[in-house]
Amino acid sequence: MDGRPEPASALELFRRTRARTTDLVAGLSPEDMTVQSMEDASPAKWHLAHTTWFFEQFILRERVADYRSPDDRFAYLFNSYYVQAGPRHARSRRGLITRPGVEEVMSYRRHVEAALEDLLRGEQADDDLAARVVLGCHHEMQHQELLVTDLLHALSFNPLMPAIRKPEPMPSHGETPMGWTEHEGGIFAIGHEGPGFAYDCEGPRHDVLLRPFALGDRPVTNGDWIAFMEDGGYDRPELWLMEGWAAAERNSWDAPLYWWQQDGEWWCFQTRGAQPVNLSAPVAHVSYYEADAYARWAGKRLPTEAEWEVAAAGQPIRGNFMESGRLRPVPRADARESQLYGDVWEWTQSPFTPYPGFRPPEGALGEYNGKFMVNQMVLRGGACTTPIEQMRASYRTFFHPDKRWQMTGLRLADDR
Amino acid sequence: MDGRPEPASALELFRRTRARTTDLVAGLSPEDMTVQSMEDASPAKWHLAHTTWFFEQFILRERVADYRSPDDRFAYLFNSYYVQAGPRHARSRRGLITRPGVEEVMSYRRHVEAALEDLLRGEQADDDLAARVVLGCHHEMQHQELLVTDLLHALSFNPLMPAIRKPEPMPSHGETPMGWTEHEGGIFAIGHEGPGFAYDCEGPRHDVLLRPFALGDRPVTNGDWIAFMEDGGYDRPELWLMEGWAAAERNSWDAPLYWWQQDGEWWCFQTRGAQPVNLSAPVAHVSYYEADAYARWAGKRLPTEAEWEVAAAGQPIRGNFMESGRLRPVPRADARESQLYGDVWEWTQSPFTPYPGFRPPEGALGEYNGKFMVNQMVLRGGACTTPIEQMRASYRTFFHPDKRWQMTGLRLADDR
Amino acid sequence: MDGRPEPASALELFRRTRARTTDLVAGLSPEDMTVQSMEDASPAKWHLAHTTWFFEQFILRERVADYRSPDDRFAYLFNSYYVQAGPRHARSRRGLITRPGVEEVMSYRRHVEAALEDLLRGEQADDDLAARVVLGCHHEMQHQELLVTDLLHALSFNPLMPAIRKPEPMPSHGETPMGWTEHEGGIFAIGHEGPGFAYDCEGPRHDVLLRPFALGDRPVTNGDWIAFMEDGGYDRPELWLMEGWAAAERNSWDAPLYWWQQDGEWWCFQTRGAQPVNLSAPVAHVSYYEADAYARWAGKRLPTEAEWEVAAAGQPIRGNFMESGRLRPVPRADARESQLYGDVWEWTQSPFTPYPGFRPPEGALGEYNGKFMVNQMVLRGGACTTPIEQMRASYRTFFHPDKRWQMTGLRLADDR
Amino acid sequence: MDGRPEPASALELFRRTRARTTDLVAGLSPEDMTVQSMEDASPAKWHLAHTTWFFEQFILRERVADYRSPDDRFAYLFNSYYVQAGPRHARSRRGLITRPGVEEVMSYRRHVEAALEDLLRGEQADDDLAARVVLGCHHEMQHQELLVTDLLHALSFNPLMPAIRKPEPMPSHGETPMGWTEHEGGIFAIGHEGPGFAYDCEGPRHDVLLRPFALGDRPVTNGDWIAFMEDGGYDRPELWLMEGWAAAERNSWDAPLYWWQQDGEWWCFQTRGAQPVNLSAPVAHVSYYEADAYARWAGKRLPTEAEWEVAAAGQPIRGNFMESGRLRPVPRADARESQLYGDVWEWTQSPFTPYPGFRPPEGALGEYNGKFMVNQMVLRGGACTTPIEQMRASYRTFFHPDKRWQMTGLRLADDR
Repeated sequence: MDGRPEPASALELFRRTRARTTDLVAGLSPEDMTVQSMEDASPAKWHLAHTTWFFEQFILRERVADYRSPDDRFAYLFNSYYVQAGPRHARSRRGLITRPGVEEVMSYRRHVEAALEDLLRGEQADDDLAARVVLGCHHEMQHQELLVTDLLHALSFNPLMPAIRKPEPMPSHGETPMGWTEHEGGIFAIGHEGPGFAYDCEGPRHDVLLRPFALGDRPVTNGDWIAFMEDGGYDRPELWLMEGWAAAERNSWDAPLYWWQQDGEWWCFQTRGAQPVNLSAPVAHVSYYEADAYARWAGKRLPTEAEWEVAAAGQPIRGNFMESGRLRPVPRADARESQLYGDVWEWTQSPFTPYPGFRPPEGALGEYNGKFMVNQMVLRGGACTTPIEQMRASYRTFFHPDKRWQMTGLRLADDR
Repeated sequence: MDGRPEPASALELFRRTRARTTDLVAGLSPEDMTVQSMEDASPAKWHLAHTTWFFEQFILRERVADYRSPDDRFAYLFNSYYVQAGPRHARSRRGLITRPGVEEVMSYRRHVEAALEDLLRGEQADDDLAARVVLGCHHEMQHQELLVTDLLHALSFNPLMPAIRKPEPMPSHGETPMGWTEHEGGIFAIGHEGPGFAYDCEGPRHDVLLRPFALGDRPVTNGDWIAFMEDGGYDRPELWLMEGWAAAERNSWDAPLYWWQQDGEWWCFQTRGAQPVNLSAPVAHVSYYEADAYARWAGKRLPTEAEWEVAAAGQPIRGNFMESGRLRPVPRADARESQLYGDVWEWTQSPFTPYPGFRPPEGALGEYNGKFMVNQMVLRGGACTTPIEQMRASYRTFFHPDKRWQMTGLRLADDR
Repeated sequence: MDGRPEPASALELFRRTRARTTDLVAGLSPEDMTVQSMEDASPAKWHLAHTTWFFEQFILRERVADYRSPDDRFAYLFNSYYVQAGPRHARSRRGLITRPGVEEVMSYRRHVEAALEDLLRGEQADDDLAARVVLGCHHEMQHQELLVTDLLHALSFNPLMPAIRKPEPMPSHGETPMGWTEHEGGIFAIGHEGPGFAYDCEGPRHDVLLRPFALGDRPVTNGDWIAFMEDGGYDRPELWLMEGWAAAERNSWDAPLYWWQQDGEWWCFQTRGAQPVNLSAPVAHVSYYEADAYARWAGKRLPTEAEWEVAAAGQPIRGNFMESGRLRPVPRADARESQLYGDVWEWTQSPFTPYPGFRPPEGALGEYNGKFMVNQMVLRGGACTTPIEQMRASYRTFFHPDKRWQMTGLRLADDR
Repeated sequence: MDGRPEPASALELFRRTRARTTDLVAGLSPEDMTVQSMEDASPAKWHLAHTTWFFEQFILRERVADYRSPDDRFAYLFNSYYVQAGPRHARSRRGLITRPGVEEVMSYRRHVEAALEDLLRGEQADDDLAARVVLGCHHEMQHQELLVTDLLHALSFNPLMPAIRKPEPMPSHGETPMGWTEHEGGIFAIGHEGPGFAYDCEGPRHDVLLRPFALGDRPVTNGDWIAFMEDGGYDRPELWLMEGWAAAERNSWDAPLYWWQQDGEWWCFQTRGAQPVNLSAPVAHVSYYEADAYARWAGKRLPTEAEWEVAAAGQPIRGNFMESGRLRPVPRADARESQLYGDVWEWTQSPFTPYPGFRPPEGALGEYNGKFMVNQMVLRGGACTTPIEQMRASYRTFFHPDKRWQMTGLRLADDR
């Protein structure tokens, strides 16, 4: 959080972000927005309220002397994990909160939005305020992505396989053979610096020493993945990390999450409901363990996050992001452009650790990223569920290696 | 299920029962009706749909040749445990089904009601049909009770402590000392026989041999229970069954479910929201283990179900039932009448086992009670959440000895 | 515990019982005697020490003013569940106690034996003392049985399938068809009364009212069981109690414990190591759930414990008990004698509940049986691992309905 | 495994290593050597057999045409995790294997030793053979360390607190204030290369880019740790990684493993039995989570493994290792020498990941390290339970961040 935007641009971002959230839940019923399918996931209603609480807690309560919350107890219900911001409701029980209902949460949103607009347009608006608002917007964008993937997970337990978005056909291109882009070794700077928003964990910008490497010019596709499966990928422990194999056995993994076989064909559950697997689209919903096993099977490896960032540094940020409205990975029209962004988050072989010199900010906001720096792996590039506005080359997201409910895929790397 | 009612009276019961269900959920939001707080409990929406499916599955599909369900897949979603009626959705995941939503379920109810009315008023209506309808109504009444207690359980996880019914004051009478009613020993017949509805497990009517006994003339009250607590009832393993003590330790029981202490006073969560504990009302939400420990502490014992039924045989059925609308136990105006019914289900010391000569009916309906005849204890008398229409002296309900979310209390017994 | 034996006979029983324990463990290694395979089971070494502690705790410490234990800390290690006798080591961790070792435990045994002999031969010896010693001996006999079955369970995890006793051939008779013995209804007295040892839970003797019934004239055999299996017994949920079916699915039961199929033939693991299943021997190592499903499949039922005891009342106590040294069920030479005792404990349909008027004795010894009176089922008749000296018609043992590691089988009953 | 030793020196190492193992278990009873206290740990007897199986499996079976194992089934019992070497006994059940007993395992050891001596002294002995033997010896040295720490863990469950080694006094020096050693930044080579044994994961040797840093000149001591505890270290979630805090809460951590407070003084359980905590000895038995929280509390950080190795590169390898016989950390006589080795393994902030260009060897031996490269943290420097013969600057050991049963401590680092 070191951007220094102006209040006016922060206000615009705020409006745009809040509106995107409202758009996302249009068409969802109160029932859809109430349920929680596992501790990792949260109800859509909770996302709506938590992102609102974030602005209330870290801006309104600090900056508006006479601010009145519609209900002070919401702070208990909608704090996620900020221990320095007070006690909070058990994460595993968010799906049991039926009141406030969706309407009351929407009213809470409007209440906070009005107060924040007043503040941003008022005399006290300054760069610090704007910076906090921008952080709050990026925070909300992260929750937009989670809202979709969490809801998809919840709906996946419904044997009626309801769709979040209207089903529509998706043409499958033929298989595009994967090529390689070549990269020199040397000393490179990675990490965020300078103006513009970034999370604390993206800095400090620092030098890394890389050896020559190559990156696949497209993500691994569903077609590639089926080849792996048909070659016994899920039955050969020697391809797997020990804990990966244990996870696969414990959970009976034999395909990506949401896949099943029907009359000899692979199907999957998506935001568009039940769909045949599109062979030329990037594979999604695979864990790090599976991605790692695939790379070993292919005789390659996953990239490090530094390799990925160095390769991405000069690229334009474009691709299939949330704004496209597709909410699922699609075949790449032209893989030749080696586009690194969009469709699926790409697992790297890098554990999520602090960059040299990293110190989290003081206070509750310092809990944003630092306290997760163990047992998780970095992913890069954003997905079809990520707002493009949130993306940049230095962006690091991270998940545990056994997680599959996010839009997670992979791209191969190799030594040169 | 051996009543032989006429179609006309079955139709009236059907209308009355269905309307009571609709009344029960008036004022609940779609969010309230969607959640499930544990595997033992079900969403209100599920209860609405499952009771409807019961009529559809066991009557309409069998008797109406051209019956069309609004959605054949509902059979999968809303079958509870009838293995002979086909596969079903996992019980622990009922709370993840957001679609069909409440409105669609209400429409499903109306669809089935219309079809059943046609059938009952048609030419094919006969005693067999009427008997099935009556069974379906009693089944629905059981679920009315569960709907309230399950919802209470779900709401109890909400720190805002929302009320199902409008809070209203409940005066506490002074403590009424408990007296005893005396009963001779001898051979008595218990169990259901003759006209009128009863479940299979209430028969065959058979002789039992009893020794002289006495019953408390009122249930154990909250005031009594606090005396037990203050005498270390939850800290003295010698008062407890071994598995009861283990359950108490594992779950940190130190008072009935939904109780907490605040400024030196005991409070509880009820359908009326947070309330001070009323000392003269019957204690509710205690497990068999606690009831048994209490009786040992008091130097008495729990009654057997045969003792309870023999004592109840000649009594009028009256008391605080669901129809009163109170939905919580209330102080007894005059304990001297020794009323055995209403307010709280009373734990007996009798495990739920088959009566001599019991054979479950053939087919899926035979699964109604017989397959639960292990590891559960019988309770008698009905509670403030039980429709009085459902009650009779031979009625046996049953729960595992560690369950506390039902309206379960106790009455003492003693040898003579 | 209401026998009133004389000190001299108590001394003889004491010597006989202690010697039998020592004989049992002859040939076992210190390693064999150390391990614990589950919380229900205990190491052989623990059984040796716990039965010794019982004499020390309940007799020597109370009656011998200057008694000195070899190590006062043994009381903590070797108390089982007597909460009134002080705190104790966690049951699930008995298998981690390597010291005292077997030799030291043997020395502890000799120390207590010498002190007890002195006491029994001394001037203070009286009937009360003798009664306690007799109780201690019966207690030790119960542990003799557990020692064998617990060790068998532990060894069953060893893929080398080591035998406790030397393997020896066991001829299989042809199949003996099962017949029925007929019994009148009426009022009968059951339970223990009068001289001779019995546990508290066997009294008070009291009247029960029975309807006419029939009992199978032999236990269900392995051959019978295979017929059940071949008819889909483990695949038909309608035959099972709901919790039984859940247990079977959860644990993948498809045969009795210790059975496996090899080249089309059924084998089992026994005290004699791996053996072919003997078709004419009584089936053992089945749970109550399986026994109940079998009875339903056969169109019969299990007997009540009162039926069993009334039938056994006039019979001589003989059969295949521990003293035979076989330590496994054997085919009955002549099933026509309808012998009710020995080979396998027979599941009844009776939950373990207190007899009318039952009150446990005061003090820690009152914990012997009373606190287990929930969630367990009564078994009758003793097994090949039971000392015959312990057996009588009123003897009630009890296990949870899912337990299979004891020598548990069944006999059918039917209404008449 | 790229050392190229000569057969003669391999033979000497073999004899020395095998003898050290035998020395380690002198004085242990068969009971001590049988138990397993958790899945992470193994029985001493299993370590004795598994290290023997390693030589048999990877050398004798491959090189000696007519080699006969004493029991071919041992391969199933004593394979650890080499999936390419065949199926194996469940890790969590190693403590249930009572046969083969200790004596038979000792005889198995002698059998394999004799065969291996023959082979090493024979005409076919070559460098490849010697290299495998050396690997087997280093493998056995790793298990020597585990044998001690696993046994300590098992004995810790015994309330009698038995000692592995004779208790003896350990003088506490006064507190030595911690100083810092300063290190330049730059490009450095780390990892193993050249002659001498190293594990696959220590290579390839490669360049790393470091920024200037400082290292504490001694490990954190028990005295330091008590200051952390007294400042609320275990009560302040803001000091902890989120998963660390969850682990601390779940397991009720409030001090290092094996510590307890008694009459206002801290005690700990060691190989010498119960001992007062020595304030000037390095703290041991802390998890990565605790080490990380400590560093945050101290305003410092943990070193990376590259920093540690660069600092250690020029140092002589000396310190308190297994050969000292102490088997517990001791106060450093002179902290000024900044000795990096011995006493306790030091947690680094580096996850265990492959070095650039790492490829595991083909075949089952390739499973040695590569398949563990996720979710574990690297530790450096060796401990009082590590044979010094095993140590070198490039040695990487690794454990999950919540593990505490190893001799794990920490050293602080800081940016410059």
